[in-house]
Amino acid sequence: MSEHVRHIATPSGFLMVLRQGDDVLARLEELMLAEDIASASIMGFGFVSKARFGFFDFDRGDYEPRDFVDLEITGLAGTLAWMYGIPAIHAHASGAGRSFGLVGGHVLDLIVGRGSFEITIVAHPHRLVRAMEPDIGAKVLQIHV
Amino acid sequence: MSEHVRHIATPSGFLMVLRQGDDVLARLEELMLAEDIASASIMGFGFVSKARFGFFDFDRGDYEPRDFVDLEITGLAGTLAWMYGIPAIHAHASGAGRSFGLVGGHVLDLIVGRGSFEITIVAHPHRLVRAMEPDIGAKVLQIHV
Amino acid sequence: MSEHVRHIATPSGFLMVLRQGDDVLARLEELMLAEDIASASIMGFGFVSKARFGFFDFDRGDYEPRDFVDLEITGLAGTLAWMYGIPAIHAHASGAGRSFGLVGGHVLDLIVGRGSFEITIVAHPHRLVRAMEPDIGAKVLQIHV
Repeated sequence: MSEHVRHIATPSGFLMVLRQGDDVLARLEELMLAEDIASASIMGFGFVSKARFGFFDFDRGDYEPRDFVDLEITGLAGTLAWMYGIPAIHAHASGAGRSFGLVGGHVLDLIVGRGSFEITIVAHPHRLVRAMEPDIGAKVLQIHV
Repeated sequence: MSEHVRHIATPSGFLMVLRQGDDVLARLEELMLAEDIASASIMGFGFVSKARFGFFDFDRGDYEPRDFVDLEITGLAGTLAWMYGIPAIHAHASGAGRSFGLVGGHVLDLIVGRGSFEITIVAHPHRLVRAMEPDIGAKVLQIHV
Repeated sequence: MSEHVRHIATPSGFLMVLRQGDDVLARLEELMLAEDIASASIMGFGFVSKARFGFFDFDRGDYEPRDFVDLEITGLAGTLAWMYGIPAIHAHASGAGRSFGLVGGHVLDLIVGRGSFEITIVAHPHRLVRAMEPDIGAKVLQIHV
């Protein structure tokens, strides 16, 4: 049997399968560097043992964090871009706990639980960057003609 | 620096970045007209200052609306098609408030908040229309051989 | 007028429109067989009259199920693969009820309600299989170099 890998190339980009203990954002950053992804849209789902979501507090200029354990992530949506030459991932997600109720928000951290996490990456050829826009106090994906 | 735009073309369709105050459905309609999009599937996420979701009431034949403010939209899923020659967007979304709990439903209105809203559009070449189907009292995307 | 169909081919895969009474997972299995889909990523949304979600109980090694009625599914995310030569679908979803609160989890069953359910399928050329991995007690999508 051949070795497990964490991603394969597809006609539209890549398909990732992450495993127990994998850090979702860190693995996506590694993928961006390994495959030199200029920019991409991503969608994912799977089981996580830990999720840290944030809700942006414009007074403080930072995310108010909250940690959750053992969630069936029902949807991760995000984009991959660059900032100061390093990967800059922006993603939101929602997840269901044992009670089937949902929680979610801006993704600050996701660790794959006992099971897996599957991510579909639709790659774009444009090298896109995020930039802090002082007038709104938030990082925004920059697109230009 | 070149001018900000709200969308760029990608191999699979378009990538949109909307900004504070933008009306998500209105901007998508403009995109359909500007780029003559025959039909498309869309996915998005971002921060909205206002969301109006609907839950269909088949007795009344219309959506029961509910307004929410300041939501991290964790996922928008929809399709772009046409009805009577004008854009007809069908989308559902979910969003997390400050308490990290989620609300959502059929999208009647979304206004981008302090931050941004990113949408990935996968374009299809078929000119698709929606039609009211009297037997179920709902508009359905029509696909034919 | 030509006959309604449940799917059409697109440049990236397929677009499905399911109707009242359709079993979402069964229709996706039929699509995989009819179009010989090697593997795919899917996203969907729509109205269901019945949803059965599961939350995995590792002690029992099976999903704890819960049934819900009349949900606006705000997002379905999944992958299509094979196991022992038959279709093996893995999908998670979230849905809003009349109160606009969300529930969700691993999809065990979804039946389309009065309305429709639209699914976008991004096809991949790799014939992918799921396999039970005894060390974690879960089925995992297998990808190899």
